[in-house]
Parts: sequence; C-alpha cells; structure tokens
Amino acid sequence: MAYAGEPILAEELLFKPRHSLIDQSLHSRMGATTTNGDGFGIGWYGENPEPAVFKSIEPAWNDRNLREVTGQIRTPLLFAHIRASTGTPVQRSNCHPFRHGRWLWMHNGALRGFREVRRDLVTAIDPVLFPDLEGSTDSETLFYLALTFGLTEDPLGAVARAVGFVEEVGRAHQVENPVQMTVATTDGQSLWVFRYSSERQSRSLFFSTKIAQLRALHPEVEVLHRLGEHTRFVVSEPLRDLPGAWNEVPESCAGVVRGGADELVGFEPVSPN
Amino acid sequence: MAYAGEPILAEELLFKPRHSLIDQSLHSRMGATTTNGDGFGIGWYGENPEPAVFKSIEPAWNDRNLREVTGQIRTPLLFAHIRASTGTPVQRSNCHPFRHGRWLWMHNGALRGFREVRRDLVTAIDPVLFPDLEGSTDSETLFYLALTFGLTEDPLGAVARAVGFVEEVGRAHQVENPVQMTVATTDGQSLWVFRYSSERQSRSLFFSTKIAQLRALHPEVEVLHRLGEHTRFVVSEPLRDLPGAWNEVPESCAGVVRGGADELVGFEPVSPN
Amino acid sequence: MAYAGEPILAEELLFKPRHSLIDQSLHSRMGATTTNGDGFGIGWYGENPEPAVFKSIEPAWNDRNLREVTGQIRTPLLFAHIRASTGTPVQRSNCHPFRHGRWLWMHNGALRGFREVRRDLVTAIDPVLFPDLEGSTDSETLFYLALTFGLTEDPLGAVARAVGFVEEVGRAHQVENPVQMTVATTDGQSLWVFRYSSERQSRSLFFSTKIAQLRALHPEVEVLHRLGEHTRFVVSEPLRDLPGAWNEVPESCAGVVRGGADELVGFEPVSPN
Amino acid sequence: MAYAGEPILAEELLFKPRHSLIDQSLHSRMGATTTNGDGFGIGWYGENPEPAVFKSIEPAWNDRNLREVTGQIRTPLLFAHIRASTGTPVQRSNCHPFRHGRWLWMHNGALRGFREVRRDLVTAIDPVLFPDLEGSTDSETLFYLALTFGLTEDPLGAVARAVGFVEEVGRAHQVENPVQMTVATTDGQSLWVFRYSSERQSRSLFFSTKIAQLRALHPEVEVLHRLGEHTRFVVSEPLRDLPGAWNEVPESCAGVVRGGADELVGFEPVSPN
Repeated sequence: MAYAGEPILAEELLFKPRHSLIDQSLHSRMGATTTNGDGFGIGWYGENPEPAVFKSIEPAWNDRNLREVTGQIRTPLLFAHIRASTGTPVQRSNCHPFRHGRWLWMHNGALRGFREVRRDLVTAIDPVLFPDLEGSTDSETLFYLALTFGLTEDPLGAVARAVGFVEEVGRAHQVENPVQMTVATTDGQSLWVFRYSSERQSRSLFFSTKIAQLRALHPEVEVLHRLGEHTRFVVSEPLRDLPGAWNEVPESCAGVVRGGADELVGFEPVSPN
Repeated sequence: MAYAGEPILAEELLFKPRHSLIDQSLHSRMGATTTNGDGFGIGWYGENPEPAVFKSIEPAWNDRNLREVTGQIRTPLLFAHIRASTGTPVQRSNCHPFRHGRWLWMHNGALRGFREVRRDLVTAIDPVLFPDLEGSTDSETLFYLALTFGLTEDPLGAVARAVGFVEEVGRAHQVENPVQMTVATTDGQSLWVFRYSSERQSRSLFFSTKIAQLRALHPEVEVLHRLGEHTRFVVSEPLRDLPGAWNEVPESCAGVVRGGADELVGFEPVSPN
Repeated sequence: MAYAGEPILAEELLFKPRHSLIDQSLHSRMGATTTNGDGFGIGWYGENPEPAVFKSIEPAWNDRNLREVTGQIRTPLLFAHIRASTGTPVQRSNCHPFRHGRWLWMHNGALRGFREVRRDLVTAIDPVLFPDLEGSTDSETLFYLALTFGLTEDPLGAVARAVGFVEEVGRAHQVENPVQMTVATTDGQSLWVFRYSSERQSRSLFFSTKIAQLRALHPEVEVLHRLGEHTRFVVSEPLRDLPGAWNEVPESCAGVVRGGADELVGFEPVSPN
Repeated sequence: MAYAGEPILAEELLFKPRHSLIDQSLHSRMGATTTNGDGFGIGWYGENPEPAVFKSIEPAWNDRNLREVTGQIRTPLLFAHIRASTGTPVQRSNCHPFRHGRWLWMHNGALRGFREVRRDLVTAIDPVLFPDLEGSTDSETLFYLALTFGLTEDPLGAVARAVGFVEEVGRAHQVENPVQMTVATTDGQSLWVFRYSSERQSRSLFFSTKIAQLRALHPEVEVLHRLGEHTRFVVSEPLRDLPGAWNEVPESCAGVVRGGADELVGFEPVSPN
C-alpha cells in the first residue's frame, strides 16, 4: 500500500480503514498465500528528506510498537508492506520497503529461479552500491539493479532496463517467465508504480479515484471528508468496497503520481545493453 | 496437540504429518479464528522428570530454531500448542503449554469476562503457588487454580473444582457461560484431557484410534507402520482424513491415557466449597 | 532518563549526547549490574494527551526501529529506561516506562522479597485498576499501588502511601529493607522524581542545572545553545562530565519539575491506613 | 567455544562452568568489545550426520529457549558463539556457527575493509555454493571461500588458500592487514582451529590439556571427574583459572583434534592461483 497526499497520521491509514492493510494481513483475499505473516514494514517521509523505515518480523497485527508509533507520525507519503516469504529468510533486512538515500522501494511478486540467477544479478550491481545491499531477497536485488540502471535520474527507463536485464539472465538460465511484479517506488516527491510480469498475467494493482470525484459519488461516506484533496492510494487490493473508488492499473503499465496529478503509461522491459 | 507413545522425533509429529499442527497454524480449519499466529509452544519429557518447554511469539511456521530443535529431540510425551490471543499480550510467558514441576497444561478456549473476574481468581490461588504465576492469561490462571484444588493428587477432581470455582466467580460478576475449554494436562506418565463449556457447546476434541486397529483398517498407509503400539494423539482437529482414525471426545467428558490404555468419563464442575 | 523542555527530536536526546543513555546501556558505570541488556523502553508525549510508548526486549543499542523512530518524533517530555531484570521475565510488558491513561512511570531499584510479598501487594490494587496490570514486575505493581493511593490527585502523597504500604507488607514478611527506588512519573505536564530506600542508601539520581546558568558557565559548549531555556534532565548517572551541570537529588527526597521551574522536598513513606 | 569429547548435556558446557561462555557474554574479559550482545548461536551433532543449529539475536543470557533446549541435548561435539557485530546487521542469518552440509564454521575477528572487498569476495564463491549464502557477514563469506577452495577435502589447505585470497583482494583495495581471525570448523568428526592475522597479532585462542593429565594435577577439582577421557575444549578465553589447564595456540598456527588426539601445525596463507 502506498499513500500520497496531505500529511496524515499513519494510524489513520493502517489501522482505521475498514479492510485496512493490517486487516489484510489476516485475511488476504486476493494474494497468492492465505496469510502474509512473514514480516512487515512501513516507510515514510517526515523530519528529513530521507525517509524513515520501521520493519519487523513479528506479524504486523501483533506489533504493539507499530501501533504506538503510527499514532505519532504524520506524513504526506507512506509505504506499507506485508511480506509473504517466497523462500528467503524471515529477517528484518529482508522486509520491505527497502531504502537507499531518498528512495523507497517495495515489490510484490518474485524473480523466478532466484537461487539460480542471484549470483549473476548481484554481480551486475554497481560496485559503489553493492556494499549497501543488506538482505538476500529478489526484491532488494531488483531495487539495486534499478538503481544501477539509473533509477534516480529516469525511473521509468531504469526499471525497464532492470527488468529487461533480469529477463535476459533468467532466460540464459532456462527460467520460464523470470519476472512477476508489482512495484512501487518514490523519492519522497513523486510515486512510480509498475505492474508487469513476463507471462503478462501480473498480480493486481489498483489506484484510487480523486477524492473530489469520490465525494461527489458518495457524499454520505464520512471518511472521504477527512481525506485531503490530493489523496492517492495505490494498493494490491481495494481497501474497501466503494463503487467507483478503485481503478485497476492495466497489465504492463506504469503510473506516476505527482502533486495530486497522475499519469499512466505502457511498460515494456528493454535490454540494458 | 498431545502425543503419548513410543519415543519419537518431535519433528515427525510436528512437521511430517499431512495436515500437521504446523500446517494448521496457517489453515486452521475448525478453530475460532482463521489464523493462529500469536505464539506457539511445545513441551516434552526427555532427560529429566521435569519437562522442557520451547515457546515463541513468532509464528511457528517461521521459527527456524523450532525446526532445528524438533529434529534433535526424542520423546514419549509431547504437547504442542498454537495460540490465538483472546486479548492478553502476545509474550512468551503467555504461551502454552504452562509448566509447574512435572506438570504441563494447555488450554483452548476462554474464561469469559476474564478482565472482570481475574482479580478474584488469582487471589484464590494458593499463596505458595502464586509467585510462580508468570503471565497474564486466563489459561495459566485456570492451571494454577487446578493446582490449588489438588491437580497433582486428583486431576479429575481438581479440574472439576477449579471449573466449578470459575463458574461461581463468573456468575457473581454476571458473566454468562464463564468457561469454554478443551484442556490437556500431564505429569509425564498419564495424560488427562477435558472437553467442557458452561453452555455445553464446547470446542472440538479428538483422540486417535489404537494403532493396531488402524493398521488393520488401513494396511496401505505407511505412516501407521512407523508409529508404535502405544501411540495416542489428542487433537483439536483431525491431523489427516483417515476413516476410523479419529474419535470425538463427547461433550462434558474427560479422558485419561496411561500406558497405551485409556478411559472416558463424564465431567461435571463441582463447587470447591 | 527523563527530559522536560522545549520540543526536541528524541534522537538528539538518546543517540547524540556523549555518554548518552544508549551508550550507558553498554557501559553503565554506576549501576548495580555491569550491563543493562534486558529490554528498554521510551515513552513520550506527542499527538495526544496520552503518551506513546515504544518498548523492546532486544538490547537498545541493536534496535534499528528505535533509531528510525527517534529521528521522527519531537516531544517536550520523554522518558527512557533500560532494564536490568531482577528476576522477572524479560518481556515487553515488563519493560518501563509503564503507562496508565496520561501517566508514565519508571523505576530503578527493587521491591525486595517481591516473590513473597507480590500476592499481598497486587490484591491491594484497586479492583478497577487491577485488570490493566499487564506484567509481573515489582515496578509496575508499585505504579498501580501509587495509582490506587491517589497518584493522579496527589502524586507526592500517593507515592508516600504506596511506599509506606510496601514497607508494612514487607516487614510482615520479614523482608529487611523492602524498598529501593528511584522513580520518575509524569502526567505530561509536570514531572515528579523520587529517591528513597528503606535503608537510606538509595541509588543515585541527578537533575540538570538550568540551561541559562550552564551557558554562562560554559559558553564554549555548543550543545547548550541548541537546548531550550526550559530544558531539564533527570538521570541516574550524569550524561556527560560538565562541571556544575549535575545536581544530586539528596537521599529521601522528591522533586517536581513544572514549566521550567522545580522544587525539592523531603520524602518520607506514610502508612496508608 | 568448541567442545569435543564424550557425549555430554549441552547445559553442562554452557551454563554450569564457572566463567562459562554464557557468563562471558556479560563479562568478556579479553575480547575486543566489553559486551557481546549482538546474537549468539550453538551448533551440535546429534541425531543426524548434519549438525543442528540454534541461533538468536536476543542476548544469550536472556534466551529461555536456549536454556531449555541445552538441558535436553547430548552431544559429542558442540560449537557455541557469541557475536559482537562489527557492522553488519544483527539478524539470525548473521549469527555463528554457519552450517553447510555436515560442516560448521565460526570465526572471531574481521575481514577488514569488508564493505570495499565484499563484492570481489562473494563473486569468487563457487556458483554452486553461492545460492546457500544467507547472510551478509565477512565470517560467512570466509566460510564459503574456504568451501570453494576445498574445505571438505583439505581443510588446512583450503583455509590457507581462502585467507591468501582475501589478503590479495584486500591489498588490491589498499586494505592494511586484511585478515584478523580465530576460526573453528568441523565435519562432526574432526575439529580444526586456526589463529592468524595479517599483522601477526591475532586474538587469543586456547585449547585444554588432556583430562587425565589435569586430573593428576588437580585431583580435588570435582568437575574433572565428570568430564570424559577424550574431552577437548577450544576457547577464546580460559573458562576458569586452573593452572596447567589451558594452552595458548601460538600465533599463525592451526590445530586438529580427532578422537582425543591433537596436533599443532604452522599456518601460512597461500595464493589460490
């Protein structure tokens, strides 16, 4: 889940909505696994240009520190992620969102055959960035590849090159359909999201309708009056059933949210060479 | 889940069976909540007359130490429990099984209105036992009441008196149906189980058919040949679908398993006064 | 450690000072034990009249979430505590500071013979408050006794009565010198501190000199210019060696800090009866 | 600490000796840091040819599961390690001992400039072994380099080649004195230990005198009569002050313990090319 908009208490985003993210951790309705209890993390922008992160390997719904802290932080941009491990160890450094400088990154899905391709992928990471790699996940590796291929200058192009590279390496190792991903990344100002998979059957991704429009549709829904004009949510699953509230990001697409405006473009991997 | 029988690797009991306990933590099919991720514990008899316990607040399915340890311990009597908190904190001292001297105790269900009656219940605990109370759950309190009312001398009677006392205190506080429980307890030699609730609609409890009989029924099922003659399982939910393998403990009943033999008797709370 | 003063980033208080609290956890110079690695906690006032708490059983110096969070919270009143267990379990609910409504409480020292007197002490807690008792420590029990004896109305008197009661119960159980304590408590506006022990040899407690006075003494010390006029620290050990900066709270005394002003009075337990 | 000898309860080794390892975690007298509270681990041989490991990021002296488990496992070969992080994250996968197949590995010291040389080192790991690398430490990397250079066939030679390689890479990156290490490794039958540093000022390493000899020296020391004939300890610091009990491994030496016998040889890194 990603939120961009007026500064808001994190608690409002994580614990208050019906069908909130926290609730999803117990009753993930559309996810690949029935429970997502392998750790969670939030990242947000507050006092500094660099974001803060809070991650834990306890289930999110049990973490009392998380609840305490989210009642105390106001932020215009929050990422939240609940992890279902696809095999790599359950440890803090493998929890999303990942951070590098001003950037946050989170990923649902998998780089398939990661045990086999991992060595080729990590050796392609810029040697200057390599020492900051902390964990052992496919998701963090994909982030560092995107950084290597220019994420901070050209996010859409860099992710296209990173995915293209992973697909090349995967194919060289006879991995079928190497990439399955929905990704969200931000520098604290803009928010980029991606929906893509090699087999063109990507996991779901939704963004929310503009609040003004939603208020007109549902004047009786009180929560809409508490949310600011520039509110935008990007989620794997709709937070609550509200007709007209959620728009699916189409297959093989990327979206940019910036200052309340947004744009949707096609996404196609490219070879980095 | 409780196992009594020939010494066996704990791993065989916890990780190998189809529909094992560990698997149940993810897909609890008949439990009150859909996931039971609020901690787990095992207790077993090994080197000493006093049992050992291993408890954690991480989800059982993520605990790599649990998997390592269960591959190294052989035991003729093992308790395993996965907790779904009914409100008290998620912390090691609130995880089952509870231990006192040679005794282990685990409980599914709840003492209703526990916040209201807790003070009256804990002040009824034998002052000699009181200092050993470590956590804040209804289940541990019930254990210490049973110890107070003579568990080590007369298990069936002591539990009847403890439950009778809880019902009296509950009613004095206008709690409807104060007790909902399936309980298993052992001194390392015998195993007692209880199925009872004030409203006579108790959670399910099953014990396994004798292995010799099961082998005759299902000669093709290989796992039955690896289990010893004296094997007895007591479980909240059948471990696997095997016709004739599981017998429900009837409502308001207690069972005793000792040296391969077992006995079922009616269970009725009595006033301790 | 307690801080009262102008709103400040918690990080400045916990990680920046030479001889900070975090550093003390590794090199506790004057404490009873050489390391204090049995959990820590912070409590602070921010978005609401009720304080937030962040507690963990990991060593404070390893907790990366703590570091992240303290870089994001500004507060005019912060409590921080590092625990050295005197026997009760190492678990979150036993970590200081304890909270009740708007109040925070932390305690260094011990109620001696706590295993023996615990039952008498907890049964004296107001039945309305009793259900909120979460852990099993002497320190939390003392807090709830103080609440029972009127902490929110008359802090100095209530603590005197609570301590008097503990001494009475202790003596009835042949406990020599039942109380050893330095305590800090607050309602978010005022800060009360206590230094007392039955044997009149209490653990150390210091409060900081007014910042204006310190600046005059040490114009070259840069950090003094970053701290606000109303800054007051109360600590078990001086945070850094700065002549004139630290004043010891005398034996058997209590202090009140409110709006930059403070007052020191004698402290004597009284019988609550 | 490493133990080889007659099967013994792990508890006897870890919690019983005066100046035990657990005690050392609090009062490390000769280590580089005053406290070693960044996680611990034990590895032992029991039911299978592959060893089991138990690791945690809690301080060893607080881990109640550790105490429970060590009272239940008998083993002829146990490794125990308490970690003081030199910068890499505190997480289970970074705790020693590391395991690969039948092998255990633990390391005190550091590969200096590891952030700078890490990429060159991990890319030299055999691609077949690479996927099993779980953590991000210098110690695990050194283990995998030793495996790459033939640890299972020729332990002394393989470690010499791994160290030689690390020194070459280090020098290429202008790292002064790249290696500081005491290492212990085992296949469950034999035990190899190494004391080496590029600057020839290695951390201390001791092995114990034969029990028969010690008994003759100290007939009054009861614990010597409880230890078997083949007992051998290898430790960073003497477990207790017993004249004649501890022999320092000389600078730049390796030792082999096998079936009660042992041998000491010089150790010199060699270029793997």
